[in-house]
Amino acid sequence: MTIEMIAFDADDTLWHTEVIFKRAQQQLNEILAAWAEPELVQRTLSKIEIGNIAHYGYGYKSYTLSMIEAAIALSDGTLTGKSIKDILALGHEMLSADVNLITGVKETLEQLGENYPLMIITKGDLLEQTSKVKRSGLTRYFSVIEVVSSKSVKAYQEILNKLNLDPGRFVMVGNSLPSDIQPVLDLGGVGIHIPADTTWSHEIMDDFNTSQPNFYELETIKDLTGFLTTLDQKDLTS
Amino acid sequence: MTIEMIAFDADDTLWHTEVIFKRAQQQLNEILAAWAEPELVQRTLSKIEIGNIAHYGYGYKSYTLSMIEAAIALSDGTLTGKSIKDILALGHEMLSADVNLITGVKETLEQLGENYPLMIITKGDLLEQTSKVKRSGLTRYFSVIEVVSSKSVKAYQEILNKLNLDPGRFVMVGNSLPSDIQPVLDLGGVGIHIPADTTWSHEIMDDFNTSQPNFYELETIKDLTGFLTTLDQKDLTS
Repeated sequence: MTIEMIAFDADDTLWHTEVIFKRAQQQLNEILAAWAEPELVQRTLSKIEIGNIAHYGYGYKSYTLSMIEAAIALSDGTLTGKSIKDILALGHEMLSADVNLITGVKETLEQLGENYPLMIITKGDLLEQTSKVKRSGLTRYFSVIEVVSSKSVKAYQEILNKLNLDPGRFVMVGNSLPSDIQPVLDLGGVGIHIPADTTWSHEIMDDFNTSQPNFYELETIKDLTGFLTTLDQKDLTS
Repeated sequence: MTIEMIAFDADDTLWHTEVIFKRAQQQLNEILAAWAEPELVQRTLSKIEIGNIAHYGYGYKSYTLSMIEAAIALSDGTLTGKSIKDILALGHEMLSADVNLITGVKETLEQLGENYPLMIITKGDLLEQTSKVKRSGLTRYFSVIEVVSSKSVKAYQEILNKLNLDPGRFVMVGNSLPSDIQPVLDLGGVGIHIPADTTWSHEIMDDFNTSQPNFYELETIKDLTGFLTTLDQKDLTS
C-alpha cells in the first residue's frame, strides 16, 4: 500500500492514562466517605462526567469540575471549601502526573520513524495533551501533533485534507474502537487496534464489526513494526 | 505582496469575549460579598488565574476552577457547596453565552473571502473555541481553524510549516500585540492590530515598538478590506 503516514492515538496507546483517573477516583471516594459509599460516588461521578462532555469536553480540568459537581450533589451542598480544596488538589495531581510510557512504545517509534512519517491524533484538552507529549520525551518521533475535541469521521477528514494525505495510504493505531478505528475505516484507511489493559467504558464499542476490510488487531505495540513492514510489502507486490 | 493567507484572532477580534469575563466577575463579587470587597475578590482571582495559566491554560473551564480556588481562599475554606454550585453555574453560563459578533465582522469576511483564503488562529481551549466558531455562524468563511495553547513564535512557525505558507505572504489580524502581532512580525509576516474596546491586562504590551516594518493599526475591522486591497496592490507594483 505504500504507507504515507502512521498516526497514533496517545492516551492508553502511547502512555498509561486510565490509571490516573482510577487513582483520582479512589481519592474522591475517601474525601466523600462521610456522605456516600464508593459505588455511589463512582456512579454519580460517571453520570455527571458523561453529561458534561458536550459542554466541558475531555481532560483533567473537565474531570475536576465534574468531581466537584458530584461532591456537591452527594453532600447535598453541605460539603465545605476545605473538601473542595482537596478535590482541586486531585486535579492538580492529575495534571502533573508522570507520563508513563507503555512498554515497547519507544523502541517501536524508533524503528517505524526510520521508514515512515509518524503523527499523533489525540482527543482531549489541547494544553494537557501537548504537555503530555512534551513530557513523554517522544516529541522528536512525530512530524505533526493534532489534538481534536472529538474523533469523528469529520475530524479525521479535516486532518487528512489539511495535511494532504490519501486515506488509502493512512494508518491509524489506537486502543479505542469508536474513536481510533471505526472512523478511519469509514474513510478507507487502515485501523490497527491495540487494546489497552483498562479501557474507559465510554470507549468500548460492543457492536464493532471485526470483519471489516483494513481492520487489524495486535496484542501489543511491540508487534507493530513487524506487522506494518509485512503489510507494506505484501500490498506493494500484489 | 500577493497575500497567500489572512489569519484572524477570534476572541475580541471577531466576537466579544472580555464582556463575558466581566459579567462573571461581577457575579462572583456578589457570591463572595459576605467575605470580601469586590476589589479584593478581583485582585485575588486575577493572581490565582495568572498563577494557574501554566497548568490550566486559557478558557472558561480554567477560569471556573480559578474562581472556585479564589472563593475557597477568600472564605478561608468556610464557603459551602451551595456557593460553589453557584460558581459552577457561572462557568456554565460563560460556556453557553451567546457569541456576539463585533460590528462589521461578517461583511468584512464576506468581502475578503472572495479574494483571499482566510483562517482562524485562536488561543485557548480547543472545545470552547471550536464551539464558538460553530455558534458564530462564521465557519464557512474559514478554510482552516487552528487552536493553540499559546501564541508563541514557535506556535506560528508550526502552523506556517504545516500549511506550507510563506511568512512573507501571511497576514495576521488581531487585538493583542503580544499574541497576535509581535510573533508574526518576528517571523516576517504582516501584523494588523485592531484594538478591542476592552483588552485583558495580560494581553497588553507596554514596550511594543510601533515602528516595526509590516506593522499596521486599524481602528475597526471595517477598515480591513480597503486597507488590504491597497496593501496588496501597492506591493505588487513596487
